[in-house]
Amino acid sequence: MLSFESDYVNGAHPEVLKALIDTNDEVISGYGNDRFWNSAAQKIRTACACEQAQVYFLTGGTQTNQVVISTLLRPYEGVIAATTGHVNGHEAGAIEYSGHKVLTLPHHDGCIDADELRAYIQAFYADGSHDHMVFPGMVYISHPTEYGTLYTKEQLTAISAVCREYDIPLFLDGARLGYGLMSPDTDVTLPDLAQLCDVFYIGGTKVGALCGEAVVFTRGNMPKQFATMVKQHGAMLAKGRLTGVQFDALFTDDLYQRIGAHAIRMAQLLKAAFAEKGYEFFLQSPTNQQFVILDNDTLKRLQGQVKFSVWEPLDEHRTVARFVTSWSTREEDIAALRVLI
Amino acid sequence: MLSFESDYVNGAHPEVLKALIDTNDEVISGYGNDRFWNSAAQKIRTACACEQAQVYFLTGGTQTNQVVISTLLRPYEGVIAATTGHVNGHEAGAIEYSGHKVLTLPHHDGCIDADELRAYIQAFYADGSHDHMVFPGMVYISHPTEYGTLYTKEQLTAISAVCREYDIPLFLDGARLGYGLMSPDTDVTLPDLAQLCDVFYIGGTKVGALCGEAVVFTRGNMPKQFATMVKQHGAMLAKGRLTGVQFDALFTDDLYQRIGAHAIRMAQLLKAAFAEKGYEFFLQSPTNQQFVILDNDTLKRLQGQVKFSVWEPLDEHRTVARFVTSWSTREEDIAALRVLI
Amino acid sequence: MLSFESDYVNGAHPEVLKALIDTNDEVISGYGNDRFWNSAAQKIRTACACEQAQVYFLTGGTQTNQVVISTLLRPYEGVIAATTGHVNGHEAGAIEYSGHKVLTLPHHDGCIDADELRAYIQAFYADGSHDHMVFPGMVYISHPTEYGTLYTKEQLTAISAVCREYDIPLFLDGARLGYGLMSPDTDVTLPDLAQLCDVFYIGGTKVGALCGEAVVFTRGNMPKQFATMVKQHGAMLAKGRLTGVQFDALFTDDLYQRIGAHAIRMAQLLKAAFAEKGYEFFLQSPTNQQFVILDNDTLKRLQGQVKFSVWEPLDEHRTVARFVTSWSTREEDIAALRVLI
Amino acid sequence: MLSFESDYVNGAHPEVLKALIDTNDEVISGYGNDRFWNSAAQKIRTACACEQAQVYFLTGGTQTNQVVISTLLRPYEGVIAATTGHVNGHEAGAIEYSGHKVLTLPHHDGCIDADELRAYIQAFYADGSHDHMVFPGMVYISHPTEYGTLYTKEQLTAISAVCREYDIPLFLDGARLGYGLMSPDTDVTLPDLAQLCDVFYIGGTKVGALCGEAVVFTRGNMPKQFATMVKQHGAMLAKGRLTGVQFDALFTDDLYQRIGAHAIRMAQLLKAAFAEKGYEFFLQSPTNQQFVILDNDTLKRLQGQVKFSVWEPLDEHRTVARFVTSWSTREEDIAALRVLI
Repeated sequence: MLSFESDYVNGAHPEVLKALIDTNDEVISGYGNDRFWNSAAQKIRTACACEQAQVYFLTGGTQTNQVVISTLLRPYEGVIAATTGHVNGHEAGAIEYSGHKVLTLPHHDGCIDADELRAYIQAFYADGSHDHMVFPGMVYISHPTEYGTLYTKEQLTAISAVCREYDIPLFLDGARLGYGLMSPDTDVTLPDLAQLCDVFYIGGTKVGALCGEAVVFTRGNMPKQFATMVKQHGAMLAKGRLTGVQFDALFTDDLYQRIGAHAIRMAQLLKAAFAEKGYEFFLQSPTNQQFVILDNDTLKRLQGQVKFSVWEPLDEHRTVARFVTSWSTREEDIAALRVLI
Repeated sequence: MLSFESDYVNGAHPEVLKALIDTNDEVISGYGNDRFWNSAAQKIRTACACEQAQVYFLTGGTQTNQVVISTLLRPYEGVIAATTGHVNGHEAGAIEYSGHKVLTLPHHDGCIDADELRAYIQAFYADGSHDHMVFPGMVYISHPTEYGTLYTKEQLTAISAVCREYDIPLFLDGARLGYGLMSPDTDVTLPDLAQLCDVFYIGGTKVGALCGEAVVFTRGNMPKQFATMVKQHGAMLAKGRLTGVQFDALFTDDLYQRIGAHAIRMAQLLKAAFAEKGYEFFLQSPTNQQFVILDNDTLKRLQGQVKFSVWEPLDEHRTVARFVTSWSTREEDIAALRVLI
Repeated sequence: MLSFESDYVNGAHPEVLKALIDTNDEVISGYGNDRFWNSAAQKIRTACACEQAQVYFLTGGTQTNQVVISTLLRPYEGVIAATTGHVNGHEAGAIEYSGHKVLTLPHHDGCIDADELRAYIQAFYADGSHDHMVFPGMVYISHPTEYGTLYTKEQLTAISAVCREYDIPLFLDGARLGYGLMSPDTDVTLPDLAQLCDVFYIGGTKVGALCGEAVVFTRGNMPKQFATMVKQHGAMLAKGRLTGVQFDALFTDDLYQRIGAHAIRMAQLLKAAFAEKGYEFFLQSPTNQQFVILDNDTLKRLQGQVKFSVWEPLDEHRTVARFVTSWSTREEDIAALRVLI
Repeated sequence: MLSFESDYVNGAHPEVLKALIDTNDEVISGYGNDRFWNSAAQKIRTACACEQAQVYFLTGGTQTNQVVISTLLRPYEGVIAATTGHVNGHEAGAIEYSGHKVLTLPHHDGCIDADELRAYIQAFYADGSHDHMVFPGMVYISHPTEYGTLYTKEQLTAISAVCREYDIPLFLDGARLGYGLMSPDTDVTLPDLAQLCDVFYIGGTKVGALCGEAVVFTRGNMPKQFATMVKQHGAMLAKGRLTGVQFDALFTDDLYQRIGAHAIRMAQLLKAAFAEKGYEFFLQSPTNQQFVILDNDTLKRLQGQVKFSVWEPLDEHRTVARFVTSWSTREEDIAALRVLI
């Protein structure tokens, strides 16, 4: 069945798979820090125009959020996130499991606002009881957000400024970063992220890999004995090559960008198809996730013909549906969808 | 360079890799429980002669130990292990990170003893202060052990009996289980494990997969909302297919057994080669890890010619070295090694 | 200086102190479960009209909330509370430290609403992704609330009904319960609480003791090995007598009720004094905490003359101030305050 | 019944109780850092001859060990202790609950040995796999030990030197410190401890207080936001006065020393009585805990006449019994005991 369910329902991009095949017989010592890790890390440093970046490869998004947040926070600190932030609602309490509170700010189409962030931190320190409260110790944002939306460079700069004013790290969850970077509607680049964030991750699982996320510490701020703590979280692969080889492929010949650009182009075709047929959108997403409003009869009919996600009910008669494109989406898939909708 | 460093320094067994290639374009919903998981799980149930077994796939050994132990233990319980147990010394405190103590018993070539286990538990309950102590809530063993040794069926039966007497689960870490099962010196089978253990895992990472361990709950005792807790530990893959496809391949056409048998045969050739040349062994290992005593001059010389692990100093002049075989070890590798030693 | 700062700024009520003095030379075994614990527990059971109640004494409110919540929740569960709940904002992340998320509902003068609670839980289970989210595993309310307000018996009954419908425990934080029970504006009694809640605690620290909170499990639901887990949390006193003796005194000759009634009477005099002088109240509190709106000039002037808490700014010119009465507040203190305001 | 059960079975020393009575009506702001805390802290600084010491009051021993150890350790570190250390066996896993492993050394009558400590740390760093292991991050000792024995100044100096060589803090558990300091067989003083330890605590609960332990950070090394973390552990009293007032009394007119000296004198009388009657001792304890070997008939007979602790079986016919003295032990109690034994 035609599928726009998500960007993690296909295997690896053929070039990533080829890299796994080509390197399969090579003897590589375990636990990472092998030649593929080093090569991939260097390519990422170059792409980020950030030679001092420290790069570490993990396997999944929740794992990465948990490991990064819990190893950077002090025990008395929590992480600030949008109410809609993935770490707040959709990670089964992984942050709290690691002992830390998620402190929430309102979201604006998935984004937090720099002024509201500053006001939150100011109010915290102004509160005479703040020694009895959870200290804001990090800011977590995702880009694209849960709603596929993007921060502008100006917005990121403003958030980053607040973080530096209060000396707390800015952490950007880039599970779908490839789609954000290649959106025609963004002015944010990888070097911008390396400058504005203290740590971020470049998502692989949802951008062409079988698994893998590349954590980038931009300011020499990788915590001491980070690998030991990764092990302690159960997050270290014995065959570390698995992530290194894949990221080495993703950052060879601009594959990461090509995957992003392709999926964005497919998303635009999909959006155009829905728009043409008179559908409304829940919000304007410039990335590979499109949120379409379906009346419930259409919803029911389509569910038998194409795979997509039911996002949330809009009202009694209408539902928000999510359609997602990826490296594997083909123009003929969009054409086939256009016939159905 | 010739390598006997470990069983996780090569990629996937060709048949496992082929399965990944063959299924790469298939659309498969995320987070596991897909058709490959189901197929692999059923093949494992059959191999275990345990139809009620619940099977769940995770990515690595430390992760599996942490998730299984912490989700089965009550908060006031700890896990009993040999002092040499992997969970005790070589997992960066992953068990303690999850809030639980590792309670230690002496080891005998890596194994614990059923009588010492019973005595430990009896002494615990006899101690008038035991409400102020960590309750023994699980027994952890590995098979093969850290030293490559194996429990006999009689030993496992005795340990299992103690566990059932005190109603605490027996958990067997089978990171290298394939090598244990195919040793000529064992009388223990997969169905035996399914009968004697409450939970165990079948290691994939070290037995031909890129990553992956199959946890088997044998008595309907998978904890409620296990998948949610896996997510909470950061241990859930979005592309759950990665583990399912590999284990489906490992349990097709007896691949898991074939890998084990091959590595064991290579290990025996390797052992014979060392014996023939007059080397002594630190202990008699019937599996794919061989512990050879090298005088330090030989050690130094060999380190320039072949990769292996320095296990521990034996005395001032001699060192225990570990040589490991795997699916990728070839007879000509052994022949080449024989020339060097 | 005249003080209405809080109900924990004086020592013990004289009758409580006398009990400590009278029992000081008695030899009593350690760690609780001594004759004073047993006596106090029985008096509490009687006061609650709940013979099956299990009573355990801890030392402080945050400790009690942490121990009760973390020992009753399963690892994948969080606790539902009002955004204003003490556990959400004012316990330095003690619940998250124990691994659990606080799931928030809107508050209505500090209270949660049964319908909103049901809607929250229904929405959770209706969400197709709920296996990736934190399960609602307990409901936490406080009575009086952070704002000194009270639930009616009808409201508590409705909340309790939702909890039982979904089989999750209702936990009531009674840090200031004595003041709630003796308010003229309540229809809620201790036996009501024992019927409607699964667990609650009777606050001692803020109601005449030097320290101590009595946890009441109403349905035989004290977790197995609760004392061991109390120890594990660092919450067990070697001289358990300290809490037992105090609670035995508090529940002798209706002392707990007398303390509550006295403080309430003082609060009403205080409220009348402010009202008479034309002050407005932030909200109508029927208990020992009164929230008065002060213009900032008055605030400044009064701060030099009497101790009270600055609650929060209301607007640019006005501030919410909190005045609290206790067992030690005297009529002449109110009279002295009246002169100042 | 005559009781030598423990040093926490009586109430407060009369001078401590008097201080609580005398200050009961005083208005004192909550959560510690009040005038009694400040006064007690200054007296402790003076007694320690350590003006830069930072002093914080907690309520019990396990709590203190958990809070100090978990707030000083980094996440990847564990604490080294004797196998017999209280934190290893008798605190219900409180250290592991906080996420850290207890790394054990052999004990010598309850003490660890500096050379064995150095060897342990050296072996750790020499192990090529140590990034996968728990780092030694602190040394925990108790003085007196679990067996009532004491370190000499030379031994402490040697342990301290190893700690400083490896830059890990030395933490001394002084639950019964008063008895250690006043033993005729010690050359260790409070100023010595302040010089040699990085942090230690002065036990109150077992030395005349109702509850309370004074933590002393000797080198400006109290962790940032320590009070917030104390709150997070549920270890902060609202009426912080309770510990401050008691320690202020304990350090007034040498009360702490007088209590220690009295109990030691009683212990020596007790020891002499047993020795005179021909009893043997399990080991030579120079403090207030005496370990006497009783044949099992005598054990049984005495249990009906006097309270003491059964420590452990020695062999089939004999048992080690513990007799403890305290501030409340009187000469006539020893005389009465002499008649019975």
